[in-house]
Amino acid sequence: MNAYADLHQRHQRLHRLSHLQSIAQWDQSANMPTKGNEARSLALAEMGGLLHQLATEPALQGLLEQAEGETLDDDQRANLREMRRVWRASNALPQALVEAKSLATSRCEHDWRSQRPANDWAGYLDNLREVVRLAREEARYLADSSGLGLYDALMDQYEPGMRSSEVDRVFGDLRQWLPDLISAVQARQAQQQTLQPQGQFPKAGQRALGLDAMRLMGFDFEAGRLDESAHPFCGGVPEDVRMTTRYREDSFLPSLMGVIHETGHGRYEQGLPREWLGQPLASARSMALHESQSLSFEMQLGSHPAFAALLKPHLVKHLGDQAAFEELNLHRLLTQVSKGLIRVDADEVTYPAHVILRYEIERALIEGQIECADIPALWDAKMMELLGIDTSGNFRDGCMQDVHWGAGLFGYFPCYTLGAMYAAQWFASMRRENPGLDGQIAAGNLQPVFDWLHSRIWSQGSRWETPELVRRASGETLNPAHFKAHLQARYLG
Amino acid sequence: MNAYADLHQRHQRLHRLSHLQSIAQWDQSANMPTKGNEARSLALAEMGGLLHQLATEPALQGLLEQAEGETLDDDQRANLREMRRVWRASNALPQALVEAKSLATSRCEHDWRSQRPANDWAGYLDNLREVVRLAREEARYLADSSGLGLYDALMDQYEPGMRSSEVDRVFGDLRQWLPDLISAVQARQAQQQTLQPQGQFPKAGQRALGLDAMRLMGFDFEAGRLDESAHPFCGGVPEDVRMTTRYREDSFLPSLMGVIHETGHGRYEQGLPREWLGQPLASARSMALHESQSLSFEMQLGSHPAFAALLKPHLVKHLGDQAAFEELNLHRLLTQVSKGLIRVDADEVTYPAHVILRYEIERALIEGQIECADIPALWDAKMMELLGIDTSGNFRDGCMQDVHWGAGLFGYFPCYTLGAMYAAQWFASMRRENPGLDGQIAAGNLQPVFDWLHSRIWSQGSRWETPELVRRASGETLNPAHFKAHLQARYLG
Repeated sequence: MNAYADLHQRHQRLHRLSHLQSIAQWDQSANMPTKGNEARSLALAEMGGLLHQLATEPALQGLLEQAEGETLDDDQRANLREMRRVWRASNALPQALVEAKSLATSRCEHDWRSQRPANDWAGYLDNLREVVRLAREEARYLADSSGLGLYDALMDQYEPGMRSSEVDRVFGDLRQWLPDLISAVQARQAQQQTLQPQGQFPKAGQRALGLDAMRLMGFDFEAGRLDESAHPFCGGVPEDVRMTTRYREDSFLPSLMGVIHETGHGRYEQGLPREWLGQPLASARSMALHESQSLSFEMQLGSHPAFAALLKPHLVKHLGDQAAFEELNLHRLLTQVSKGLIRVDADEVTYPAHVILRYEIERALIEGQIECADIPALWDAKMMELLGIDTSGNFRDGCMQDVHWGAGLFGYFPCYTLGAMYAAQWFASMRRENPGLDGQIAAGNLQPVFDWLHSRIWSQGSRWETPELVRRASGETLNPAHFKAHLQARYLG
Repeated sequence: MNAYADLHQRHQRLHRLSHLQSIAQWDQSANMPTKGNEARSLALAEMGGLLHQLATEPALQGLLEQAEGETLDDDQRANLREMRRVWRASNALPQALVEAKSLATSRCEHDWRSQRPANDWAGYLDNLREVVRLAREEARYLADSSGLGLYDALMDQYEPGMRSSEVDRVFGDLRQWLPDLISAVQARQAQQQTLQPQGQFPKAGQRALGLDAMRLMGFDFEAGRLDESAHPFCGGVPEDVRMTTRYREDSFLPSLMGVIHETGHGRYEQGLPREWLGQPLASARSMALHESQSLSFEMQLGSHPAFAALLKPHLVKHLGDQAAFEELNLHRLLTQVSKGLIRVDADEVTYPAHVILRYEIERALIEGQIECADIPALWDAKMMELLGIDTSGNFRDGCMQDVHWGAGLFGYFPCYTLGAMYAAQWFASMRRENPGLDGQIAAGNLQPVFDWLHSRIWSQGSRWETPELVRRASGETLNPAHFKAHLQARYLG
């Protein structure tokens, strides 16, 4: 067996074992009763340790070097490149730091669940300081191993190849025109009469509606399912995608659009190159690319002017008919823009403001320009500047609203807005290639969209580094002009 | 760290990893969509190999020997005894045989799913021959390692310490009086008028009824759940028990009594000594002991003359009222005896006949006195002799009805009837100690039963070898007279 074949086999093994980890994690959120938690956490930690041990076996370094000299085809060479990336990431951090961070983030997340409703910033700050201390240490190790800057080294874990200089460029532009655009959209929408849906929407009806929406979006139910969890996510494995949602009986749109969003993630996973499953080449390329799929589904399609007509019969079937479900009104409900406190509730126009704010704060925090105690004042100032909202003293709906920082996920936030930009870029490219696209969507034919995403993104996995993947898909690398054009056309056109 | 502490840690690790295996297996039966099967099977096989590797690490032999000489308390010594038993079983079989058997039984089980409905004995025989060949080889290895006879060596995997000489003794006795008892019960029941339940029973109502029955039987829903699967089972882990059932809308009793049966298994698992979880001492003692719990719930309690009155309000609540739910009639429905073809549908009076037949055939098969091709003729003869039923040519509802042989589970069948005997012995012992027991049950107070089972069986785990556990629980070792007395009192009293 040559070195490449040996590596191939080792990754297959990692994939099989992490399959069990993924399913057990999904189960922990979707099914597990409370008393199962301690044993489950210990079991997952044991598996985490085992996977880390397998990913850092001393033999790997030599095998990776040896494989470089072997005769490989292009896909194998791309796979080897990704193997090396996984290996470098796994080996960059000392085990003691990984364990310390795991403990500190578990404690911080756990306490946050009660501190957030209590608006207890002081209590949260105590835990967050330790998490940030360890995240800075992590950034230092990753930067040393990769030669990147501190923040870039963290961001590279989620968005390989993306640099803060690039983020600055695209977010800097966005920051200029976004506040004015938001005001213009709000002024225009203030002229419109929009009926709000009336009544209670029982869970069973919402679930049936969600399943219909997944069918409309082409989800393969022989390779996945929809369940409930407190925090919706898309997990499982590519062969068996586990999506979750939650239901509020006084409101059905959050669950419905959440399901459509997760279906985008789910189809990316289901569409990864099957002949490569188990190898790094078959992994989704990055978090921004992943988000570009969920936002292609939720925003590009779900808020498309023609989509309300496709949704309406399913609403009527599962929730009964009412005036608010009339097509134009439904479209207005799906595209209502409002300046709110909460990122996850934000529409596609105000969402980037939430992300820019977090990016600017977390980058300064990691690079040591600010300390944790400075976060609330900066938060308040930036919320006022970007959205004109006063958040002073409201930690709960301000800087304590997200799980990311407490969980040690620094460098993740930019992916959300980069994903929105990529999604706009995909649709601009689809329309250039296929001028009849909007007519097809209006006729209920979404297949051209799915085919494009499948051939350009899903089936490519990690075959190309991101700029090359993006260029092959859309003819150019990341171009935020498409996002601006999309928002202007949809909301001011 | 001394040798015992080292072993303790290794078993904790095995327990944590097998936790993920158990949950993924449950998920495979209860949730998994079809296209997930291949990846799941590969993931479970990878984990199976890993667990086997950890259980057979060369260091273990020395550690086990060294630990024998260390200062241990009684529980630790019992735990060490069980560690040695696990180790011996894991090391007895060459890896190649384990893999060959896994392949052969997978193929045999898979083909059986279509061969059984097609009544295709010839096709099944082809696969079964290979399974039996490997099971005989397995028996030979296990016999060599344990010093037991061939069949005993297989049975010892499910029922440690039980020997065919003992099974012969108790089944030999049973064989004498069972056919006459069945005839007498049937003659008596022929005099009774029993109303059959009328109508369709929607799944949602049956599920709610099953959950109520689980509450009545004291199941801890914070440490387990009820779901659906094609073949009901009780899986998961002691900290998080996963029970399943299936529903037929034309009949609710099979699911209801199945749920009560599995609840007995589930409470045994939930009641295992928590401070020892993860160690062999905390394992359920044996398959017959496990079955003695499910049958204590399903038969001793579920078919108790006073139980119909406890069930009735739940039936009325979830399925609506009807004449057949009147208490005496309901009790008759729960104790109806009929000679049928199918073991899993059998009542507690005819069930042992199905087991005796299988025991006699599988033992002769393993010991080489018969070959696979001889099974149908023997089956027909024994069905005629024990139950007076003609099964000639009906392989589907005859020797092809069970999954056990195709799955290579030889030596398992006796556990069902040994479990029924133990269950009768537990209740005889409870009544001796507490003459008011039946009055308490009639008053809806099942706690004395649960307390007895918890203190004598569940919380003991594998602390004692079976005869000692049974003696401590009930004052004597296995005594089949209690089972006979139970059937006579309930059905002819």
